[in-house]
Amino acid sequence: MTVDAAERRARMVMSRVCEPGDAEACRLVRDYSAVDLLNRLGRAVGSARSKVSDWAERLPLADFDEIATRADRVSARFVCPGDDEWPERLNDLVRLEGQRGERRGGSPFGLWVRGGGHLRRVAERSVALVGARAATTYGEHVAGELAFACGDLGFVAISGGAYGIDAAAHRGALSRDGQTVSVLAGGVDRLYPAGNSHLLRQVARDGVLVSEAAPGCAPSKSRFLVRNRLIAALSLGTVVVEAGLRSGSLNTARWAMDLDRGVMGVPGPITSTAAAGVHELLRQPGSLLVTDGGEVVEHVSTIGQALAPRKVGAVRSLDRLGLRARRVLDAVPRHRAASSLSIARAAGVCHEEVSALLDDLAALGAVTVVDGGWKLAD
Amino acid sequence: MTVDAAERRARMVMSRVCEPGDAEACRLVRDYSAVDLLNRLGRAVGSARSKVSDWAERLPLADFDEIATRADRVSARFVCPGDDEWPERLNDLVRLEGQRGERRGGSPFGLWVRGGGHLRRVAERSVALVGARAATTYGEHVAGELAFACGDLGFVAISGGAYGIDAAAHRGALSRDGQTVSVLAGGVDRLYPAGNSHLLRQVARDGVLVSEAAPGCAPSKSRFLVRNRLIAALSLGTVVVEAGLRSGSLNTARWAMDLDRGVMGVPGPITSTAAAGVHELLRQPGSLLVTDGGEVVEHVSTIGQALAPRKVGAVRSLDRLGLRARRVLDAVPRHRAASSLSIARAAGVCHEEVSALLDDLAALGAVTVVDGGWKLAD
Repeated sequence: MTVDAAERRARMVMSRVCEPGDAEACRLVRDYSAVDLLNRLGRAVGSARSKVSDWAERLPLADFDEIATRADRVSARFVCPGDDEWPERLNDLVRLEGQRGERRGGSPFGLWVRGGGHLRRVAERSVALVGARAATTYGEHVAGELAFACGDLGFVAISGGAYGIDAAAHRGALSRDGQTVSVLAGGVDRLYPAGNSHLLRQVARDGVLVSEAAPGCAPSKSRFLVRNRLIAALSLGTVVVEAGLRSGSLNTARWAMDLDRGVMGVPGPITSTAAAGVHELLRQPGSLLVTDGGEVVEHVSTIGQALAPRKVGAVRSLDRLGLRARRVLDAVPRHRAASSLSIARAAGVCHEEVSALLDDLAALGAVTVVDGGWKLAD
Repeated sequence: MTVDAAERRARMVMSRVCEPGDAEACRLVRDYSAVDLLNRLGRAVGSARSKVSDWAERLPLADFDEIATRADRVSARFVCPGDDEWPERLNDLVRLEGQRGERRGGSPFGLWVRGGGHLRRVAERSVALVGARAATTYGEHVAGELAFACGDLGFVAISGGAYGIDAAAHRGALSRDGQTVSVLAGGVDRLYPAGNSHLLRQVARDGVLVSEAAPGCAPSKSRFLVRNRLIAALSLGTVVVEAGLRSGSLNTARWAMDLDRGVMGVPGPITSTAAAGVHELLRQPGSLLVTDGGEVVEHVSTIGQALAPRKVGAVRSLDRLGLRARRVLDAVPRHRAASSLSIARAAGVCHEEVSALLDDLAALGAVTVVDGGWKLAD
């Protein structure tokens, strides 16, 4: 069921009136309509202290024409639940509404989208790669590599457009095929931080910029935390690449955990404060340490699909020796030749069997006969 | 029930006759006696291929007087189950005997101990710190710090005396108070590797060197793997500090897991091959990432004791603000003063409440009144 034109217009206004993620506003719009809510607000201006009076306070600032003009200027569209471009996965947020007190964000009633990508299709197979702004060269390298590798495996990187890890993840994705999603805390016409505006314009070419806040809205601090839930909800799993103990990316990981998405972390040196938050995360049950794109994709894929090969060292031919053959081999001297009897005694393996095993080892090229005795082959 | 003199003597000989950890020998000595076994071996020399004939093959090399002389030379003693110095914890190995095929080691019937420490008391509160010989500066630094920190918390470091992580762990423990345990693959009179002989002599001063093999026995390759089970069994938990994908320390961790001991790993950069084995270990269920001695000790301590403080960032006074106060604070301009009404609209909080919250924020020193309006305090 798609949203009709009047309701869509009312929701665009509501995206300017209420704070992004306001759980009560989200619920009221879903259960009633934004049209009803705005009508009620029009009568409530100046009323007693309440949620409704908060919204009414900002109503004079919410001018539809101004919002529409700002949106048009950057070719932004407003996508509502039920639209073809709406990612159904976002509706998982409904069941978390109000669960974590006032910090909880609701399930959005619409999203502003800017860019050449189709939000639902781009986000269908995606992972969030997030981390600290104060990243190290190591962290940025890893974030870029992971985004690129996930792209190789058909997964799009979603991040928050910030400096540090976010930017490195977007760049890694762009350097592969240009598909990436950046979820912003302010309006999609306000490319923040300014130093990433060129990067965010690149994201908008084939990927998408997404925001819950109307065009023109500023990216205030509290909006970053609420924004994080969209990053977690849009993707199949969240990877924290580098995070100090207070990093906002840990908040994204908590959202992912609450949403039953995969929660992953890339470790670093324990001497690095930039890794301390990731390590704390990896000590929590339910999180998974990952070291490459294959492991990330394996974790967010349906069971049995995309299994990452378990990492093992290279197997050498002598590794396949039985324990008894190995004991015999260990007992063969390197420099001088020894009799099979003395080898049997050193190895603690009976003489008869040692003779047979020495023949096997000679066939493998591991030992050789010299002066009627045995020594290790060179 | 302690072992009598004749049986003790027979076990010393058996420690030269059979391979360390030979599960069948361990079981036969436990269920019958080493005296019986040696009598039977004396008649079996030259018999058909079998375990017994393996032991018989080496019998001519096992001269009690020679073993005793070598032991005396380094003041080594032979400690048997039931002795005051015997660590009861080692008996946990009984239930694993033969479970993992021929690589499985049995529960030892005696251990050679050298050094000023009392094995049982030293190992009572201990953790194994193990890792790769091919360690990095980072790994050695971390191993030394962990051993020292565990010492501060009353826990002794147990390791294998090898180059790299093992040596760094021993050194870290020695630099604190000299209590540490080194479990060797060869006899306790053969300080291997030679480059660590000075270090191992230091270990023997207040700590102990331990081996299952009789004095004089060489540290052959297969003995290192069997030795690892003693490191895991002697300690309350095993920490792998740095390990490539083929590192023997991962074998120690597997023993610890099978013995229901704590299994821990210290992460490193994913770009470091020296950390790859640890990361693979940390991806297995049941292992725990640790970053300091407190976390190690917490994991191996009885539930509820020695809880490591959860790592969180420093809390600043403004962190305690409610969400609404924070939203108001975000809306206060930094450079020019704004009216409380315009702040209310920007914040999306009703005007009446904003006035009260601005007063609170001023009391906290976060905002200030200038020209009849509000701005952020400097």
